Amino acid sequence: VTTHTDKEFERELVELRNRLLEMGGLVEAAITNSVRALIERDAELARQVKIKDREINRMEVDVDGACRRMLALRQPAASDLRFITTALKIATDLERMGDLAKDVAKRALELAKSPQAPALSSMHDLTKLADLCEAQLKLALDAFVMRDVDKADQVLHGDHALDAIYHNIFNSLLALMTEDSRAIRRATAVMFAAKHLERFGDHAINLAEMVVYMVRGTDIRHPKSRTVGAEKPEPT
Amino acid sequence: VTTHTDKEFERELVELRNRLLEMGGLVEAAITNSVRALIERDAELARQVKIKDREINRMEVDVDGACRRMLALRQPAASDLRFITTALKIATDLERMGDLAKDVAKRALELAKSPQAPALSSMHDLTKLADLCEAQLKLALDAFVMRDVDKADQVLHGDHALDAIYHNIFNSLLALMTEDSRAIRRATAVMFAAKHLERFGDHAINLAEMVVYMVRGTDIRHPKSRTVGAEKPEPT
Repeated sequence: VTTHTDKEFERELVELRNRLLEMGGLVEAAITNSVRALIERDAELARQVKIKDREINRMEVDVDGACRRMLALRQPAASDLRFITTALKIATDLERMGDLAKDVAKRALELAKSPQAPALSSMHDLTKLADLCEAQLKLALDAFVMRDVDKADQVLHGDHALDAIYHNIFNSLLALMTEDSRAIRRATAVMFAAKHLERFGDHAINLAEMVVYMVRGTDIRHPKSRTVGAEKPEPT
Repeated sequence: VTTHTDKEFERELVELRNRLLEMGGLVEAAITNSVRALIERDAELARQVKIKDREINRMEVDVDGACRRMLALRQPAASDLRFITTALKIATDLERMGDLAKDVAKRALELAKSPQAPALSSMHDLTKLADLCEAQLKLALDAFVMRDVDKADQVLHGDHALDAIYHNIFNSLLALMTEDSRAIRRATAVMFAAKHLERFGDHAINLAEMVVYMVRGTDIRHPKSRTVGAEKPEPT
């Protein structure tokens, strides 16, 4: 039997999911725009990203409140409980991803101060990195909505490509700085932006891992933490 | 009347608190040791930090499990519910802080590869930054345990000092790189380590804000997100 309360709860769950998706959409736009602002030295766009971030922050507080209300009033069990506690954590990750987009926007503002300086060669790779970040987030949110473990797995596997591009950027900027000391300040800004993107990608991994937990009920986070002994070398 | 179940629940709450404190203790040790490893170019100590991080990761999964079990079985309300949902988020922050210590340890391993290179002048400031990070974390955990909003406020105010030291380090490393191209690789590593510490400090702020929420029931996160209009310039 479906009671009135059940239906209301059902509606609340759908609303919670939609809010997280909306929040994810804002974060996607933020990372894309922040990198565009960086590459095109568009200070106005960078400022917009910073302002939009407040909306993302507000949404986290809203989602948290909704989750807590549902935990208090609906006393959910099993998969609903997993969904709600996962939503609490996903909101945190999305908010941090928004912060990282804002951090990239700050670098963009720095670069926009010297509009005449020549473009750095790494900019093409930076666009590739940003595209991959956005794709990873999109896929992770898809996995969440469809409760699709295969899609979550794709996210987990996509991280290698992202790391590889990051390291390319890092090394070519290091070489550039050594060759041309006038480029050091700008190259450092781009290096940090690349690092922010790489960390953005790490958050997409977190999301994917949480989706697997939500669907399967098993925690796959930190697989390495379960094995003692040999460890594969990690990217720095 | 205190029933048997109440007492058991009480015991579980104390246990949860203790676990978070234990996790916090590991994170404190990790950040201190990672910076010591960086400054003393002690590769062995850096490797220990990386290994210890797995224990921190495991603890997050444990804390999450305990929180979810309590939410499912005890159906807590009001302040207990706030405590448990806050614990879920605190565990995430502590785990990320452990990751940042591991990131510093990776930079330490890089620096340890060139034991003969001269020490960089920023190392003294880096120790100061690490001490402040550790103090902020300690204070935030104290605030959590004692449900002490004043202590949490102290953490929130401590962030300016931390940011100031970070910017000193950043600028002096930038100057060094411009003067001496042979120092670029090492200076970049230290710059990233300083950035990791600065972000570690941001997480302490998150913890303090969550303590205020837990105690007062009002969310003070993202104060800027509530005001539209004039914005103070932010550190980059």
